Amino acid sequence: MDKIDFTDQYFMKQAYMEAREALMKDEVPVGAVVVSEGTIISRAHNLTETLNDVTAHAEMLAITSASEALGGKYLNNCTLYVTLEPCTMCAGALNWSQIGRIVYGAVDEKRGYKRLTPSPLHPKTEIVGGIMEKECGELVKQFFAGKR
Amino acid sequence: MDKIDFTDQYFMKQAYMEAREALMKDEVPVGAVVVSEGTIISRAHNLTETLNDVTAHAEMLAITSASEALGGKYLNNCTLYVTLEPCTMCAGALNWSQIGRIVYGAVDEKRGYKRLTPSPLHPKTEIVGGIMEKECGELVKQFFAGKR
Repeated sequence: MDKIDFTDQYFMKQAYMEAREALMKDEVPVGAVVVSEGTIISRAHNLTETLNDVTAHAEMLAITSASEALGGKYLNNCTLYVTLEPCTMCAGALNWSQIGRIVYGAVDEKRGYKRLTPSPLHPKTEIVGGIMEKECGELVKQFFAGKR
Repeated sequence: MDKIDFTDQYFMKQAYMEAREALMKDEVPVGAVVVSEGTIISRAHNLTETLNDVTAHAEMLAITSASEALGGKYLNNCTLYVTLEPCTMCAGALNWSQIGRIVYGAVDEKRGYKRLTPSPLHPKTEIVGGIMEKECGELVKQFFAGKR
């Protein structure tokens, strides 16, 4: 048996599976997982329609749940994997959490945090973009194409 | 009996009372209320320590609760009163909610959304700042002075 490869690719696949869950609920398909010391401590997908709540983005739910798992509100030693570049709200929340690392899939030209100056993220947070970019982006495109 | 004056001042006083609740719990004293058609439909104060959750800002809790009260996630016809200029996270959430109007008390030079370009708020949201500015700001100053 092959050894499981605990790389960014592996964890992004988990976030991607969360995004597919969202898609099945007719939610904008974005998924996220938070990893601490090689273990997934929280997983979530966008639930804004289901919960009737604009704040229920995958990242927000994953942050809240990770803090609960750790028993503390700071996520310095954690990595968030998310299928789409975080929006302003989520980037702001990630800043407050002082998360150690963010790995995202597809770019969000319209709503992504990267449009903003100065960067809304914490200066100490390491950022990696473009992991499984095509698959993550396709999910969102597919969702919005189906809405037209 | 004097008629109650349902002005910005009145509703900000309600938000201020929420901020005082936060102070009594040793939370950063920020309070918020959401008003729809002259009625307060949600009220909240910062609970980040109590809930061990960086996302539990007064505005976030007030938005979630207002959406629940209205049975819909958009707050176009609502006004949020908040004692402190919203941070990036809260401004992002308020954008998603398409809230009609935001009235805030004190400026937050360090964490307020106004530092950001382009503005993270929704282009249609009307903004009023400086209502009960001194009282709202004093609460926060008092809190942090007590921490040193």
